[in-house]
Amino acid sequence: MSYDPNNIFAKILRGEAPAVRIYEDADTLAFMDIMPEADGHVLVIPKEPAEDLLALSEAGAQAAIATTRRLTIAVKHAMGASGVRVAQFNGADVGQTVPHCHFHIVPHVPGAPRRNHADAARMADPAALEVIAARIRASLAELAA
Amino acid sequence: MSYDPNNIFAKILRGEAPAVRIYEDADTLAFMDIMPEADGHVLVIPKEPAEDLLALSEAGAQAAIATTRRLTIAVKHAMGASGVRVAQFNGADVGQTVPHCHFHIVPHVPGAPRRNHADAARMADPAALEVIAARIRASLAELAA
Repeated sequence: MSYDPNNIFAKILRGEAPAVRIYEDADTLAFMDIMPEADGHVLVIPKEPAEDLLALSEAGAQAAIATTRRLTIAVKHAMGASGVRVAQFNGADVGQTVPHCHFHIVPHVPGAPRRNHADAARMADPAALEVIAARIRASLAELAA
Repeated sequence: MSYDPNNIFAKILRGEAPAVRIYEDADTLAFMDIMPEADGHVLVIPKEPAEDLLALSEAGAQAAIATTRRLTIAVKHAMGASGVRVAQFNGADVGQTVPHCHFHIVPHVPGAPRRNHADAARMADPAALEVIAARIRASLAELAA
């Protein structure tokens, strides 16, 4: 399959679509999932144009996991989570909804509501996402210090 | 939390417990999940003694994802899968059952049965796993050639 440069994450990378951004470096970007399964649901994407982990270079995968690891630590800390799921889906048949490789980081806070991902009726309020994003950015800065 | 050197994956790494091995390098090991959610369910672990992705070094995470990427490609090819889930759980609250960092690779073949993970009644027959493992090893060799 060829990479579709008009997928939503490609547009976010080019600044053509909005996102609540958390972290960016030369090779990766982290931002809030707009249809979160739980509060604090973050996505990490490589900047390399690759549909999935199979199409991504080894270096791209390594850049993505380095950022995913840092964000997993920050999200757990920021949300006071007891656990964190990291998931990366390859193929529409297994739940991949955007054809640009991405890693989900989903914290679990006992008692907090969980939602179905990509349920359009559950689109998060960007202002609410921004409040959570500020906490995660603060944890990231604190942990890097 | 401190690392428990007597967890089952630590024993597999030391050769003290059996596993149907697929691939090994200096930093990682891949083997068949003994309680597979689907045929072709492979686990990738770093050799570094780390309970989860948060405790694992960045280098350890990068070694693990490099092997996970290679195995994801090989598993998809070997099983004729339409998609592959990659998942990595941090904390018993989100389904981590062994306290050594691991990446699940679970292929999806349309129509094939899916099972609940870690259901002891569904422990796979090692001989059946070996048949699948041989297919995955062959794909890995073919793709590396």
